[in-house]
Amino acid sequence: MIRGLHHVGIAVQNLEKATQAYQALGLVVEKVETVASEQVRVAFLPVGETHIELLEPTTPTSPVARFLEKRGPGVHHLCFLVDDVGEAMAAAKGSGLVLLSESPRVGAGGSRVCFIHPKSVGGVLVELWQDDHA
Amino acid sequence: MIRGLHHVGIAVQNLEKATQAYQALGLVVEKVETVASEQVRVAFLPVGETHIELLEPTTPTSPVARFLEKRGPGVHHLCFLVDDVGEAMAAAKGSGLVLLSESPRVGAGGSRVCFIHPKSVGGVLVELWQDDHA
Repeated sequence: MIRGLHHVGIAVQNLEKATQAYQALGLVVEKVETVASEQVRVAFLPVGETHIELLEPTTPTSPVARFLEKRGPGVHHLCFLVDDVGEAMAAAKGSGLVLLSESPRVGAGGSRVCFIHPKSVGGVLVELWQDDHA
Repeated sequence: MIRGLHHVGIAVQNLEKATQAYQALGLVVEKVETVASEQVRVAFLPVGETHIELLEPTTPTSPVARFLEKRGPGVHHLCFLVDDVGEAMAAAKGSGLVLLSESPRVGAGGSRVCFIHPKSVGGVLVELWQDDHA
């Protein structure tokens, strides 16, 4: 069902400063964009077949701002690539995992995504991601 | 310098229960082992070219036990694969990142590893990993 790790989402206070740290490790920024629906500014840095996704809140009430307030900067979620997010959701639900939405949402770049409750996955917020061309 | 994401290390209270959640997502356990030096029991689950590494403390004083006490279960560290850990350490240090050891340590499977202080990398504990055969 899962084909790979699409990205690691990391909550940061300051996108430029955090980006510099990963650049110091030799990673390169692929793109920076604002995702209005999630109230975040995002930098994507490819690493092998996966990506580091740095998330800076654009409002004090965004989910990432609340995460930073509660836990401080650090890994916010893991996003796994799936062939069919609807099938993956049904399988996850059938195995007793708690989904955060009943149907897929539209994510970055036309992807179809769904989140699984961290309590279902040992404290980790998990996203399932289907590419728009899948 | 960095070739890929070797694994995502996740601190868990109960290895069996956490493993079941990732198995419900379709991942498969490659191996389970106890790493006495780190006072953890570890399960490796491949996903694409990377791995989920679930870490259960074997003593109440292990670093992972202290992490769980302070932050609860969740992502503990990101481990990046490098060709030469000595070179990677020198480059990271030269860029102002703070290393947690002056020389590489021997990790699982004869790997050579080094950790970078989370304060240097936006709140994320980063491990650099060189395979023994590299």
